[in-house]
Amino acid sequence: MEPIHTHRVEVRFRDCDPLGHVNHAVYLTYLEQARFSHWRDVWGFESFAFGEDGPGVILVRAEVDYRAQVRPGDVLDVRIGLAAVGRTSFTYEYEILDPANRLVASARTVQVLFDYREAKAVPIPDYIRAKLAGRADGAPG
Amino acid sequence: MEPIHTHRVEVRFRDCDPLGHVNHAVYLTYLEQARFSHWRDVWGFESFAFGEDGPGVILVRAEVDYRAQVRPGDVLDVRIGLAAVGRTSFTYEYEILDPANRLVASARTVQVLFDYREAKAVPIPDYIRAKLAGRADGAPG
Amino acid sequence: MEPIHTHRVEVRFRDCDPLGHVNHAVYLTYLEQARFSHWRDVWGFESFAFGEDGPGVILVRAEVDYRAQVRPGDVLDVRIGLAAVGRTSFTYEYEILDPANRLVASARTVQVLFDYREAKAVPIPDYIRAKLAGRADGAPG
Amino acid sequence: MEPIHTHRVEVRFRDCDPLGHVNHAVYLTYLEQARFSHWRDVWGFESFAFGEDGPGVILVRAEVDYRAQVRPGDVLDVRIGLAAVGRTSFTYEYEILDPANRLVASARTVQVLFDYREAKAVPIPDYIRAKLAGRADGAPG
Repeated sequence: MEPIHTHRVEVRFRDCDPLGHVNHAVYLTYLEQARFSHWRDVWGFESFAFGEDGPGVILVRAEVDYRAQVRPGDVLDVRIGLAAVGRTSFTYEYEILDPANRLVASARTVQVLFDYREAKAVPIPDYIRAKLAGRADGAPG
Repeated sequence: MEPIHTHRVEVRFRDCDPLGHVNHAVYLTYLEQARFSHWRDVWGFESFAFGEDGPGVILVRAEVDYRAQVRPGDVLDVRIGLAAVGRTSFTYEYEILDPANRLVASARTVQVLFDYREAKAVPIPDYIRAKLAGRADGAPG
Repeated sequence: MEPIHTHRVEVRFRDCDPLGHVNHAVYLTYLEQARFSHWRDVWGFESFAFGEDGPGVILVRAEVDYRAQVRPGDVLDVRIGLAAVGRTSFTYEYEILDPANRLVASARTVQVLFDYREAKAVPIPDYIRAKLAGRADGAPG
Repeated sequence: MEPIHTHRVEVRFRDCDPLGHVNHAVYLTYLEQARFSHWRDVWGFESFAFGEDGPGVILVRAEVDYRAQVRPGDVLDVRIGLAAVGRTSFTYEYEILDPANRLVASARTVQVLFDYREAKAVPIPDYIRAKLAGRADGAPG
């Protein structure tokens, strides 16, 4: 995987369940934070909205492979890579690593450009496609 | 406390933390569900807002006394009562009981009628005041 | 998909995010509740533990396809089916339906029988294998 | 309020609800993180418990006054102060500030020293009392 962005997450006690480790659902929240951090800090967009009047992004698929348990107080690095770009969708892949650089989870999510008012998928606009292309090449966004 | 509404909540595994009991923050979510259930099922208002074009409700204070631990799979009854009505705010009180009718928490929340566009408190409109009065009297809302 | 169990979930306001719909991470919590309900109500086991001294279950993979948005106050039915049984793992598939019987998400999770003290996977014990076999046939568990 | 510790929190998108701001229940999680950070980083105790074989801490009361809305991506400073020490309990007070140093919430929590095996409150042990005294004086802990 070729990372285009890394986001650091602090594990909260509230992220953890009676088994004493981070509940599996919370990993999706860590991925979400990494996406928003990428869009905001690298692309210059506010959280989930790609421009004021532009389409939003909706998640249509997520998959996670859990490889190691994580504990309260741990700090994690979420690495995000671009796996594929389609007509209306693009796919990210992720690796989550702990401070010892151990892989605790790998994941993929598929996002669709979505017109929330019309409630339908729309083709990826050129200015987003350019951002994605820049990132896929490793070139500045 | 004179209950004006009771709402049943199913404790989720995800509500619980590494100590094996419901995390204290989640009790506020149980109260929130009881309020929304009251507004929707008794008052006929959808979710959090008092009508589409009217002001919304914003929570300005919450206090909870925790009296007993609750476990995954438990079912709780949240009793809600009206404690006070002011010019722009009203106060609910709550009792949360487990199936053995044991008090697991008591609580109070203060809500303010809030114009989200202007970001300021507004006097309680008459149609809300009438609902509150009905409830306080025990009369039909 | 052949359901072996259906679990009803009430959508909480807190499950929803600034886009006004259930946040995608929360679907995994709905699946988790369905599993625990199946293990407790059908198999007679307490939540995540399969017998007092037996192994626990650890989730090693989850995948979700999101098909429709869900709103606060909705009630959902989570249908769970058994997709595969291996030496140390078994796979569930799921369909989440709204009151209009519309499919809002489909999903799969892979669980491994796990010795939490030794922190390693263990072969599925016979008494669990019998439960799984009963369920796969649709015979009483 | 005299702060004995400040803990920085990153607001997650998942902390926010359909009103677009941090849900009120999540503030309690921010306070919890501040407490754990204080106990771990200042006192040298791991997470929530005061030593492996000693008593734990249980929260018996929380109160929060909400003063301003907080948005996804905001960074907050949680200041914690010691308000009172009793025989079995101690009280923290808190101020939560945004980057513009605006007070977004103030709060208090009461903690009791708790023997989880016996399920009862116990007097604060001397080694905890010494930690609390050091902090209350502003002297090194």
